Amino acid sequence: MTDPLSKKNKAWSARFSEPVSKTVQEYTASVEFDKKLAFYDIEASQAHAEMLQHKKIISSSDYKKIKNGLKKIKTEIERGEFDWSVDLEDVHLNIENRLTQIIGEAGKKIHTARSRNDQVATDMRLYLREQIDEIRLKLLDLRIELIKQAESHCDVIMPGFTHLQVAQPISFGQHLLAYEAMFTRDHERLGDARKRVNTMPLGSAALAGTSFSIDRLRVSKLLKFDSICENSIDAVSDRDFVIEVVSTLAVIMVHISRLSEEIILWMNSNFNFVTLPDKFCTGSSIMPQKKNPDVPELARGKSGRVIGNLMALLTLMKSQPLAYNKDNQEDKEPMFDSVNTVNDTLKVFIELVSNIKPNSEEMLNAALRGYPTATDLADYLVKKNIPFREAHEIVSKIVSYAINTNLPLDKVSILNLQKFSPLIEKDVFKILDLKGSVNSRKHIGGTARKQVLNQVAKAKKRISKTIIQKKRVDLKK
Amino acid sequence: MTDPLSKKNKAWSARFSEPVSKTVQEYTASVEFDKKLAFYDIEASQAHAEMLQHKKIISSSDYKKIKNGLKKIKTEIERGEFDWSVDLEDVHLNIENRLTQIIGEAGKKIHTARSRNDQVATDMRLYLREQIDEIRLKLLDLRIELIKQAESHCDVIMPGFTHLQVAQPISFGQHLLAYEAMFTRDHERLGDARKRVNTMPLGSAALAGTSFSIDRLRVSKLLKFDSICENSIDAVSDRDFVIEVVSTLAVIMVHISRLSEEIILWMNSNFNFVTLPDKFCTGSSIMPQKKNPDVPELARGKSGRVIGNLMALLTLMKSQPLAYNKDNQEDKEPMFDSVNTVNDTLKVFIELVSNIKPNSEEMLNAALRGYPTATDLADYLVKKNIPFREAHEIVSKIVSYAINTNLPLDKVSILNLQKFSPLIEKDVFKILDLKGSVNSRKHIGGTARKQVLNQVAKAKKRISKTIIQKKRVDLKK
Amino acid sequence: MTDPLSKKNKAWSARFSEPVSKTVQEYTASVEFDKKLAFYDIEASQAHAEMLQHKKIISSSDYKKIKNGLKKIKTEIERGEFDWSVDLEDVHLNIENRLTQIIGEAGKKIHTARSRNDQVATDMRLYLREQIDEIRLKLLDLRIELIKQAESHCDVIMPGFTHLQVAQPISFGQHLLAYEAMFTRDHERLGDARKRVNTMPLGSAALAGTSFSIDRLRVSKLLKFDSICENSIDAVSDRDFVIEVVSTLAVIMVHISRLSEEIILWMNSNFNFVTLPDKFCTGSSIMPQKKNPDVPELARGKSGRVIGNLMALLTLMKSQPLAYNKDNQEDKEPMFDSVNTVNDTLKVFIELVSNIKPNSEEMLNAALRGYPTATDLADYLVKKNIPFREAHEIVSKIVSYAINTNLPLDKVSILNLQKFSPLIEKDVFKILDLKGSVNSRKHIGGTARKQVLNQVAKAKKRISKTIIQKKRVDLKK
Amino acid sequence: MTDPLSKKNKAWSARFSEPVSKTVQEYTASVEFDKKLAFYDIEASQAHAEMLQHKKIISSSDYKKIKNGLKKIKTEIERGEFDWSVDLEDVHLNIENRLTQIIGEAGKKIHTARSRNDQVATDMRLYLREQIDEIRLKLLDLRIELIKQAESHCDVIMPGFTHLQVAQPISFGQHLLAYEAMFTRDHERLGDARKRVNTMPLGSAALAGTSFSIDRLRVSKLLKFDSICENSIDAVSDRDFVIEVVSTLAVIMVHISRLSEEIILWMNSNFNFVTLPDKFCTGSSIMPQKKNPDVPELARGKSGRVIGNLMALLTLMKSQPLAYNKDNQEDKEPMFDSVNTVNDTLKVFIELVSNIKPNSEEMLNAALRGYPTATDLADYLVKKNIPFREAHEIVSKIVSYAINTNLPLDKVSILNLQKFSPLIEKDVFKILDLKGSVNSRKHIGGTARKQVLNQVAKAKKRISKTIIQKKRVDLKK
Repeated sequence: MTDPLSKKNKAWSARFSEPVSKTVQEYTASVEFDKKLAFYDIEASQAHAEMLQHKKIISSSDYKKIKNGLKKIKTEIERGEFDWSVDLEDVHLNIENRLTQIIGEAGKKIHTARSRNDQVATDMRLYLREQIDEIRLKLLDLRIELIKQAESHCDVIMPGFTHLQVAQPISFGQHLLAYEAMFTRDHERLGDARKRVNTMPLGSAALAGTSFSIDRLRVSKLLKFDSICENSIDAVSDRDFVIEVVSTLAVIMVHISRLSEEIILWMNSNFNFVTLPDKFCTGSSIMPQKKNPDVPELARGKSGRVIGNLMALLTLMKSQPLAYNKDNQEDKEPMFDSVNTVNDTLKVFIELVSNIKPNSEEMLNAALRGYPTATDLADYLVKKNIPFREAHEIVSKIVSYAINTNLPLDKVSILNLQKFSPLIEKDVFKILDLKGSVNSRKHIGGTARKQVLNQVAKAKKRISKTIIQKKRVDLKK
Repeated sequence: MTDPLSKKNKAWSARFSEPVSKTVQEYTASVEFDKKLAFYDIEASQAHAEMLQHKKIISSSDYKKIKNGLKKIKTEIERGEFDWSVDLEDVHLNIENRLTQIIGEAGKKIHTARSRNDQVATDMRLYLREQIDEIRLKLLDLRIELIKQAESHCDVIMPGFTHLQVAQPISFGQHLLAYEAMFTRDHERLGDARKRVNTMPLGSAALAGTSFSIDRLRVSKLLKFDSICENSIDAVSDRDFVIEVVSTLAVIMVHISRLSEEIILWMNSNFNFVTLPDKFCTGSSIMPQKKNPDVPELARGKSGRVIGNLMALLTLMKSQPLAYNKDNQEDKEPMFDSVNTVNDTLKVFIELVSNIKPNSEEMLNAALRGYPTATDLADYLVKKNIPFREAHEIVSKIVSYAINTNLPLDKVSILNLQKFSPLIEKDVFKILDLKGSVNSRKHIGGTARKQVLNQVAKAKKRISKTIIQKKRVDLKK
Repeated sequence: MTDPLSKKNKAWSARFSEPVSKTVQEYTASVEFDKKLAFYDIEASQAHAEMLQHKKIISSSDYKKIKNGLKKIKTEIERGEFDWSVDLEDVHLNIENRLTQIIGEAGKKIHTARSRNDQVATDMRLYLREQIDEIRLKLLDLRIELIKQAESHCDVIMPGFTHLQVAQPISFGQHLLAYEAMFTRDHERLGDARKRVNTMPLGSAALAGTSFSIDRLRVSKLLKFDSICENSIDAVSDRDFVIEVVSTLAVIMVHISRLSEEIILWMNSNFNFVTLPDKFCTGSSIMPQKKNPDVPELARGKSGRVIGNLMALLTLMKSQPLAYNKDNQEDKEPMFDSVNTVNDTLKVFIELVSNIKPNSEEMLNAALRGYPTATDLADYLVKKNIPFREAHEIVSKIVSYAINTNLPLDKVSILNLQKFSPLIEKDVFKILDLKGSVNSRKHIGGTARKQVLNQVAKAKKRISKTIIQKKRVDLKK
Repeated sequence: MTDPLSKKNKAWSARFSEPVSKTVQEYTASVEFDKKLAFYDIEASQAHAEMLQHKKIISSSDYKKIKNGLKKIKTEIERGEFDWSVDLEDVHLNIENRLTQIIGEAGKKIHTARSRNDQVATDMRLYLREQIDEIRLKLLDLRIELIKQAESHCDVIMPGFTHLQVAQPISFGQHLLAYEAMFTRDHERLGDARKRVNTMPLGSAALAGTSFSIDRLRVSKLLKFDSICENSIDAVSDRDFVIEVVSTLAVIMVHISRLSEEIILWMNSNFNFVTLPDKFCTGSSIMPQKKNPDVPELARGKSGRVIGNLMALLTLMKSQPLAYNKDNQEDKEPMFDSVNTVNDTLKVFIELVSNIKPNSEEMLNAALRGYPTATDLADYLVKKNIPFREAHEIVSKIVSYAINTNLPLDKVSILNLQKFSPLIEKDVFKILDLKGSVNSRKHIGGTARKQVLNQVAKAKKRISKTIIQKKRVDLKK
């Protein structure tokens, strides 16, 4: 049987006096990458055909043929037996063409009351909806690993840095929970974006709707959309939903790049704060001693990729007149690439985070190197009624003295301390201790052991609530 | 009276052996731009002081002095009498210094239990919260103007373009409502972002919290925050909220750039689809006849600015180790600039959109130029039981014939039409008419008059609901 | 024979206690995309081995084996028979491993005195050098087509737009030559970038050089590099050359996007300025009458892709500490993608530009619609000694009058013109004529026929000079 | 005297029936930022007027008045006495208006044979040319400081990192010279860009040239341009030169961000590789002990700003139709901001680099921590005829043994070493020494003392050549 839509006989070519040039065909074909949308395309075609039959736009018998034809095509694709053709431009025409090969005349009816413009927008939304759900699950897993580590290591004291200078002692648990907070926001943001992704363009046809009396709500329900796009022109020209999701993915990668930067620092021999198992590292082709933190380095680099994709999409949409333009073929690759990058990166980080081992002694020693309880000393004086700004100045001078005499703060004698302020008494040494300092920050959000565990408890609760909601959503499906 | 914090005597300088170099001081000072945060800084300081007093960390009498001092400073700033000093680095130290000048010792207590790290994050959130509300109001106004125009011109028929080629006839109202849909999404997105903006970092101090027994919830309530940041390290290092808002503003500008592109096209003499009053145009310094659509052109260009700001912020945060780093001083200008750009642009577009006058005759003529009812003819044949793909092919040939004989579709004689398909009958001419075509697209979201008015009604309802909610929010304040 | 470097036995794994995790391996492997560098890798290995032999670091007999082994590998790759393995990470280890499979012990010597760090930088520079030359040839071809069209159509008059409003009549040739000027600059910029690409990192080893007494100049000469990188650390960490080239490619795509925007406008039925043959257009799956300018639309969209790649690369390099970090694995895909995009786009535009047919009558009519000779009238008055600013004002009023009376400027009667300025005489009508206006701009760079042809002549000369230089370069090779 | 061009009486308003709306005026005015171009505008007007007189387009007496008027305006601006008006839109109309106020009728002649389109492009090029020269001088100074430091510290041994893991010992001088190499490339790139900046658009008028018989070469010579733009349409629409310069500035900032990242690391107490004087650091408002490297942190952040500006400019130009559009008003702020950022940053880094003090003992200790001579040991074995890949494996095992026994390589006994390879003899300990390792890398570009000093000598020579050239250029001026 001949290809109904192929070469000489494109879906749109009857009014053309010459075939498309080979160069143009290769330049404009998208099937190499948009075939990733095949299953979503089939799913949407199936729902569309069901509605056409329900509304008596096609016959029951044609519908049955279409249904079976689509099922067969799905199997062919799953088995790698589908013969994709660049001559047929894109995923949509490849599938429609194959359908007609398989079922004959009835296949020529599937494109009734739709256009590739609303079809591709629908496919992309189905794809992104699924990917959002997948990425959110991965974010959950990553958060769970961070929480577990934070709980296990809530007593490990490390130097908290600002400006990469020792600032105040903190709990390693508190530090890890900062990342848990970031990924929680990412999770929420994807949830908000999902609402705007999960709305159905199908039925908008080329840009104006169709003259057939279609039932868009029926299709929407079959495809589990939350709502339908309410303006046909907007429906085919809108790519906000891609930009919004990729923008959220870019922020995820920025978070990953920060965590990566820290892991790389921590594994440097001058820090030596953490150990990663060999299975997460690679060596050097020339230097036999090397053990390189390749994963966080590569992940840090990959932040550029997703940020670049976001910029590509914004540039793409900038000043495009309505409604659909071919420019939009360029929306797919940055979307696929961003989704894949984040999926792959989260997958490897879930494993990696659960394998980080803090070297608590090294961390403690590093914390001791930078007079990290100076603020506690200032606070001590404030509690003795010295205005903070003055207390700050007194302690600055004590620190200068300690640096010059090469002593840590808690080794400066009480007599010497009192030279700077007579209000300092022996009880000061309690607050100059790292553990005491950490545990004194005991308000909500503080780094005290109790508060770290409090955050852990809240985070766990939040996660179980999310998982239960998720299950409910799954049941509804 | 001497400057308590000035030159020789910086808030942090007691341990330094030499003053900061002039070059460094000029390079690192931020007061020239962060003074925009002054009122938010005062508001936050006031709430912080109230809590310190409530928790008996400072005395009632000190609190009263602080309260009055801050009030006085606010007035000075409002009157342009405040003497900003680059020597005092930033808005925070300028205000603290002036406070101590005015009220003496008590002023030195305001910085108890906080750091500039949590202070600046709080100021920025207060600023952004207010700006989000302002921009959302402007978006409402712009949507209202679009709806009014759409309603007035629901009967104006224009060519709907895909690929900037005439596709199908549409209602000018339908076209305008596509933009209303975009700005509605922007409105929603800003609402979602607001939740993540309106959470309070104050109390996180430098990065670990403070040893004072502060009451963060009290401060949060006074400052009308929805929640508090639950991890002190995240609280001072997070700038997601800026990125998320600027990303949303970039999408707004992309929408504006699309509308601008179209207005510019429509005002070109080959289109002549709309007229703008002289007051929205400018002339040329050399060409006396020119009337240039400067506003949409400039707005189109300004999309680059906000996209650039987003890029700057993402680059800024990429691979920053926790917690606060001086890099983050660079977060303010892109934020201010994006907010101002969007505010100014929306302001001028509200006025501009309400002044657009469609030239309905020119639009209609343009729609006639491109065989825009060819799809209707194909649908006609489908309804006579020709499979769509075949109907498409038949009509392609009819269009070729019409082009060659230089006739519009509805001027091809019935006899000639029947040569291509015997199923075509006289009733075909009804569907070849533009108005008939438009009104046949009468499902939800279609361009039929009834559906345009339906969208208008829904949009109006959505807006009044929003305005009522807004009022409720205002009452709560 | 077993894989000398495979799985259990990586090039760097002897000190590792456990194999790399599967997830990590998949995440970090680059062979899927860096195999594009295979031929450059072989070329560089060949030259490296020749030098090792020359310096007696390896024996002649080992060298011969290596040479033959590399030749065999090249053939295998050309024939698609090479068995790429993800287990072997990247192109370099795949080739080294295969070499040892083929030639035994001698293969284990090829990595003497080098590291993958200097190896990959060398491969990338060889690749980019070749691609720059290829792209420059394509730019030449595109410029030639633009010049041909400009010469053929130097007499076609079109409206010159500023602000997309009719400004002054211009020659279509002059308009096309503006693009020739852009692509000439691109050509020059690539030439400047080439100098910085064509310098050799090899010999820098991991980052510090090597303890073998290598001869870098010999290798450099064999590989036809202009110079060698003079600092080993810079040599392995520098990616400026990629950024610079991609930045230049982004500007090329911006130029293409501007030309595309214009072609799309010109093909709109309201303009109808040009016709493209059917073979450059595609149709619609739903609308049988459509003929869409897909190529320029898609090219316009692809500008976003290359701009995004540039942003990815800048983000990648931002704040990377020296020397080599795994982040840099991410430099390859944006580079490959940008090069391919520009190559493909130029290829299709060379064909497209040569096929554009201007519709001179439509262009002329459009030029008449906007009072485009108003400036000429002002200049006319200036020549009669009216200060320009006053002349501008007088003509503004004449244009208002003409608009109100619905007349083109040259149809306003001499009596009516004289009401605005008595200095206007009958000779004015000569300068109100479009052709007269065009040809009066006869200084260098002006749109007069003579000057257009002058530009054509200069451009041709410039191109033949470039082609001759090119041939000389080829001979030298 | 009334404002000749003001409010009711704009340079272009005679045909407009109503004044521009206040909102529009504020939105579109550029004088607030483009007044930075004032001196360049005056310089260009002066040269233009001289030519108009020479070609007898204006009289000698008018020319003299214009010359004196412009001189007076320059003085007024220098003294801060010029009254900038937003009503007059931009720098050009402000100056033209003031000129007419001062000299009367003659002032109305200055705009003969030019347009703001060619005028602003000329001003921008004059500005950028001067700024390029200024930045190149600063780059020279920065390179000189790097060279001085490299020379002084060529004997300081530090750990060379790859993947931030100790790789091989290097000279601190070698490390600093890597940055010198980067800034040398930046210097060259700006030189290449300068050629394309220094070409004159003036004479292109609005877009098509002018009907006056102007002498563009004369103006070009007066303004010291290297050449003139050869196509009038390209001349007014081209902004490549801004993009190219800003792209080069972005790369400079990327280099600065890398150096900054390293200085920040080096100042961390776990590294403690360098000391910066207090005058380059700032303290904390809460933590009395802090000494923060604010300058490199801020500079690192500012890389985002310039990258963002580049993105803004590329987005701006994407798909703009020819010739001039109002969008281009947005080209100025990113250009000014990028130039200022780079100028300020280089200024502070010249001072900072000259003040870095390496802590050589700490660096040496750090180098000892990571088995950095393992490659030397492998090379040693290769020289004893073990294939490199096998030598690498043997040494990997030795390193594992050393880690397990907690010994540095040179403390493993000869007997134990020989267990891994009998070829190892006592002379091995020479090459396990850091200094020996460094100095064995003695080919061109290697880190050996001799080669570092060789690079220093070459760099000095290159710089003095540049300075001599620069002087020649100055003399020509």
